[in-house]
Amino acid sequence: MAIMTESTIQVLKDGHVTSPKGFTAGGIHCGLRKEKLDFGWIHSENPAAAAGVYTLNTFQAAPLKVTKNSIEQEKHIQTIIVNSANANSCTGEQGYSDALTMQQWAAEKMDVSTDHVAVASTGLIGVPLPMDKIKKGIDLMGSETSTEDFEHAILTTDTVTKHTAIQLEIDNKTITIGGAAKGSGMIHPNMATMLSFITTDAAVDPDSLQHALREVTNKSFNMITVDGDSSTNDMVLVLANGQQNNNLLNESHPEWATFIQALQLISEELAKMIARDGEGATKLIEVNVKGAPTEESAGQVAKAVISSNLVKTAVYGSDPNWGRIVCAVGYSEQPLDPEKIGVSLGDIEVVKDGLPLEFDEGEGKSYLENKTVKLGIDLQNGSCEATAWGCDLTYDYVKINASYRT
Amino acid sequence: MAIMTESTIQVLKDGHVTSPKGFTAGGIHCGLRKEKLDFGWIHSENPAAAAGVYTLNTFQAAPLKVTKNSIEQEKHIQTIIVNSANANSCTGEQGYSDALTMQQWAAEKMDVSTDHVAVASTGLIGVPLPMDKIKKGIDLMGSETSTEDFEHAILTTDTVTKHTAIQLEIDNKTITIGGAAKGSGMIHPNMATMLSFITTDAAVDPDSLQHALREVTNKSFNMITVDGDSSTNDMVLVLANGQQNNNLLNESHPEWATFIQALQLISEELAKMIARDGEGATKLIEVNVKGAPTEESAGQVAKAVISSNLVKTAVYGSDPNWGRIVCAVGYSEQPLDPEKIGVSLGDIEVVKDGLPLEFDEGEGKSYLENKTVKLGIDLQNGSCEATAWGCDLTYDYVKINASYRT
Repeated sequence: MAIMTESTIQVLKDGHVTSPKGFTAGGIHCGLRKEKLDFGWIHSENPAAAAGVYTLNTFQAAPLKVTKNSIEQEKHIQTIIVNSANANSCTGEQGYSDALTMQQWAAEKMDVSTDHVAVASTGLIGVPLPMDKIKKGIDLMGSETSTEDFEHAILTTDTVTKHTAIQLEIDNKTITIGGAAKGSGMIHPNMATMLSFITTDAAVDPDSLQHALREVTNKSFNMITVDGDSSTNDMVLVLANGQQNNNLLNESHPEWATFIQALQLISEELAKMIARDGEGATKLIEVNVKGAPTEESAGQVAKAVISSNLVKTAVYGSDPNWGRIVCAVGYSEQPLDPEKIGVSLGDIEVVKDGLPLEFDEGEGKSYLENKTVKLGIDLQNGSCEATAWGCDLTYDYVKINASYRT
Repeated sequence: MAIMTESTIQVLKDGHVTSPKGFTAGGIHCGLRKEKLDFGWIHSENPAAAAGVYTLNTFQAAPLKVTKNSIEQEKHIQTIIVNSANANSCTGEQGYSDALTMQQWAAEKMDVSTDHVAVASTGLIGVPLPMDKIKKGIDLMGSETSTEDFEHAILTTDTVTKHTAIQLEIDNKTITIGGAAKGSGMIHPNMATMLSFITTDAAVDPDSLQHALREVTNKSFNMITVDGDSSTNDMVLVLANGQQNNNLLNESHPEWATFIQALQLISEELAKMIARDGEGATKLIEVNVKGAPTEESAGQVAKAVISSNLVKTAVYGSDPNWGRIVCAVGYSEQPLDPEKIGVSLGDIEVVKDGLPLEFDEGEGKSYLENKTVKLGIDLQNGSCEATAWGCDLTYDYVKINASYRT
């Protein structure tokens, strides 16, 4: 992952998905949930070049199919609508038809082309959408609410809203990229009950944007896990409405690499916010694997460690039990030499060349009491690296998930 | 899995690893743990044909290497020694040398050939074995203890001992097969912190026994999971000492299939005992997948469901949230048609042809309150099936694992 200097890319202090020029957003209560906001939208003044990545779960929910089709056909989106509480997943032909109806209603309400509306849903699986409530939500679109309301309306078991924005110079124009996300449980590499919406006022070629998003997602949203389950509904969308009138960004633009860096940064920040707010989580865990023969292999090892319930509970208990880390590395099924592996907890080296080092257990324990815990693994078997993010496994995770529906 | 009739194979009422003729076992306290028994042995009056399967973790612990080498060379084992509390894993050359020393000391003490001793260890990773304590344990081998003491000595976080025995007729001789196992956390398909020892007084060709064990293990021990982590130390050993003087059992013996059935039955029973006693578990979960194109594919789907933290917490909370089951099926990466899948909770059908059925939620909830919960999945995409076993994910799992070492 490239290092970004502050002079190139600036993180805004209170950035939102509407920080880029020409975007508005809002959220209201339409009755899908008892009291909380449950329906939101993002709207661009003009059709924006659009790209999307979607869950790999075989049971892809209806709204994903609708959104994917529209983006593939039109390569532009002007309005995104999102409901929480109901995933419109495993709902058969009725569900697909409902998602299409939502898209059409929103297009009429906002006076945009039907295929310029993206639809997203999150929540319970297998329950038909109450379309009267959805209709109520759509009727209220554009009413006076705030971006914060949008950020709240898309949440499920999340405890905080997730948003950020950054700025950079392209063609001497100040480009802003903003983002909002939700996702708490069921987060796993490959888009798991996670929704993320990224906006920018840069002008970007939609095909280039699609390639960029896929590349960046593989090193950000696909590298987080909360509980290893990947959902039927997850997607990341990027909208670029071009309101800064820069020269169209694509692979041959001299500042394309900088734009990719910025997209990587915002994706990584949103991904980390999701991991940190994992269901019941008290700590963000970052696993960095270096010395791997390929990036993919490094990624597989990092994912094995970040997904290990035993590692996650050890971090929760601040137990410097590096044996569990080594064990997870060992079952990752990646090429490695047990006699070369190194492990560190933050700056504390605990294993070198496959053998334990003497270290102060109290120091290890106290390092693990931090709110962000970094686990380092050196395979000494190549020059590639990867980073994955996750969270600890706590009593509250069990509590939340043993009674999600009650 | 074949159906076994009571007339063919009988489960003994209080079966043990020493139920077969010619085996003794014992366990003592040698000081590896504070008070609990921590060193045990199984001994056969004569060298027994032996077979073993071992963890696939890249970091295979020293005792596994020693045992595997000996069985490969000699195909016979007379004595098995096991210590708990310390895994002798990630201990480098010293660890390997220690395992060899254990083997040699035990051989001298029991007056058997060095290569006829199998060595097993379970417990903490990365700590050198205190060989003075091991020596003390070996010095006490053969002293007057009981099979129950052996079964206790091999435990770690297990709450109960695991043992059973069965009888069947081969060549008109009554053949007994007995078994003892340990394993609680870190149990996952492919031998995860799980030790299992099976004995029989049948005469069996060692190569045939090895093939049989591998086949049977794939449908029993490799189909259980507690937390998805697979450990560095796990193994299953089978010893057949031939004291019933049946005609040597091998693939061409007319009753070979019956013997395999019996080996499958005892392996499955031990595997289920391990799953039921998963760390913090309150329920045994059995996932049966049918209608798959291959047995392997059925197994992959079953493992995805049984490994899902969201399914495990839903079962803990007796929440008939079948969406989580469908979701896990969907990310199993197996060939399937979302519009054909069926799901049932015990006898209650909840999904058919990919769509939810109306069912009484209270009935679903009350079914999930059973101590054994069966989840059925029909892919309607072939004629193969597989079963996996696991347990619910509870507060106590977190509690146990957040403070394993303290």
